[in-house]
Amino acid sequence: MSMPPPQPDNSSALPFPDWMRSVQTRLDAALGRYLPPAEAIPARLHQAMRYASLNGGKRVRPLLVFAAGALSDAPLPRLEAVASAIELIHSYSLVHDDLPCMDNDVLRRGRPTCHVEYDEATALLVGDSLQSLAFDIVAREDFGDSRRQLEMLRLLARASGSCGMAGGQAIDLESVGKSLNQPELELMHALKTGALIRAAVLLGSLCGMALGAAEHEALDRFAKRAGLLFQVVDDILDCTASTATLGKTAGKDAATAKPTYVSLLGLERARELAADLRQQALGSLTIFGQASQRLIELADFITQRKF
Amino acid sequence: MSMPPPQPDNSSALPFPDWMRSVQTRLDAALGRYLPPAEAIPARLHQAMRYASLNGGKRVRPLLVFAAGALSDAPLPRLEAVASAIELIHSYSLVHDDLPCMDNDVLRRGRPTCHVEYDEATALLVGDSLQSLAFDIVAREDFGDSRRQLEMLRLLARASGSCGMAGGQAIDLESVGKSLNQPELELMHALKTGALIRAAVLLGSLCGMALGAAEHEALDRFAKRAGLLFQVVDDILDCTASTATLGKTAGKDAATAKPTYVSLLGLERARELAADLRQQALGSLTIFGQASQRLIELADFITQRKF
Repeated sequence: MSMPPPQPDNSSALPFPDWMRSVQTRLDAALGRYLPPAEAIPARLHQAMRYASLNGGKRVRPLLVFAAGALSDAPLPRLEAVASAIELIHSYSLVHDDLPCMDNDVLRRGRPTCHVEYDEATALLVGDSLQSLAFDIVAREDFGDSRRQLEMLRLLARASGSCGMAGGQAIDLESVGKSLNQPELELMHALKTGALIRAAVLLGSLCGMALGAAEHEALDRFAKRAGLLFQVVDDILDCTASTATLGKTAGKDAATAKPTYVSLLGLERARELAADLRQQALGSLTIFGQASQRLIELADFITQRKF
Repeated sequence: MSMPPPQPDNSSALPFPDWMRSVQTRLDAALGRYLPPAEAIPARLHQAMRYASLNGGKRVRPLLVFAAGALSDAPLPRLEAVASAIELIHSYSLVHDDLPCMDNDVLRRGRPTCHVEYDEATALLVGDSLQSLAFDIVAREDFGDSRRQLEMLRLLARASGSCGMAGGQAIDLESVGKSLNQPELELMHALKTGALIRAAVLLGSLCGMALGAAEHEALDRFAKRAGLLFQVVDDILDCTASTATLGKTAGKDAATAKPTYVSLLGLERARELAADLRQQALGSLTIFGQASQRLIELADFITQRKF
């Protein structure tokens, strides 16, 4: 796989908040290019697709793509493509999860959800179309090695489907009002949130030079711990933060009797679990030395985030 | 692209009805293998995915895949993979189109629709997961040439998304109660039904030896005419056939004030248009000689079908 020289913009020179903003800006620009123009027929669908995916958010998954890409000196255009695809899959899942037949939520990222701003049928098609676009992007860009590119597409498809994100959502639906034990709760989250976070990390690294087997394994371990960490913190925030801070409805888990780490362990032990997971995640990164700086900073960001 | 010898099962030796049944049987077996087992977690989702895609139907798109594959001596395993992927995209679109927020239909292929048999949230996730699985299948199988395989994935993604099938559905939604002229109606159908039928034909041929530019162009012309033909016949059947024969609710178009070829042209001229389109489709195939026998038979089948 022939590689252009590493790009300075994804180097470790920038302070973390500046790096984060630079990735977010870069991602928004890439999404803006990949999404069909708002005036292209069917215009209402394309406007709604842009509404659902260009409206900010923390962009945790794209940040993980870029941070993992730094481990393999990945070229920025490839990272932009992969980060866009992952974020479009994430955005589609939010649009569908917010629908009345699912979580029936009206607020997302501080704005009306897609089906409230448009209508349910349009929101359904928005999600469907964002998913297709994600695969189109990864299939379309030049990743240098077409066999590896096919592997990336498989990884993305599996992380999204019934044995990944959508499967986790199905378990979530089935578990409302039931009490799950910790392994059951972990399986649900490993699929619902974990699969796509893992894919973000692995796909980011696959954009650059091939990692050795031990490095790949260490990175996969990091990715799994980081995914779980993200969810535990999400559960803590759902019961401690306000709707205004979150930009989405707070307290939904308790209101809908959803099993969470807080309902299972209590707030104190959920916080201890988050601290443990952070330690385990960081421990997996030692093999990479200085190159993993962004991933370390992101694990801290995920742990300490307030929204 | 190295090619195994042509397979006798897709040869022109079988009478058309036998060939059709052999493809349908082969497709069902392939789908059965590709779909996760009904008992795999989350079991309810996987059962519903199987319910929505293993329940028969005419399998027009898979038949087109195999018929077009005969033009390029395509190996059967590749055709099975591509036909499965196309049929899963089609199945997902039916599950989502039948939802209450869309067409709100309760009957499909003579059985309760997916959200009636299961529930709306499950049906939503079924559609989402079937789409992911379609891309997984085309990314996973060995097509001999990985660059061409990426091209096939792009074709599938675009045929499915907002500039293809999902876009056509969006135009359809917007057009309820409006009067469209014939070019507008044609654009809607070129996307809604035409894009995936075209993809079936092109992807089938891409499973085998590369066609020349003139052949590719002729096949694309056939595919576009066949897609439109399929829709015109669909519109005619919606107003002339019974619910029992169709296995889905008849007369929906008129009841929901949807513009159709029959509402635009009247029944007689719609039938003339179907006959013209059949002639144009067949005319495009002369360049292929005897190898296009199955495509010719399929164009006749599409024109004469009663359900």
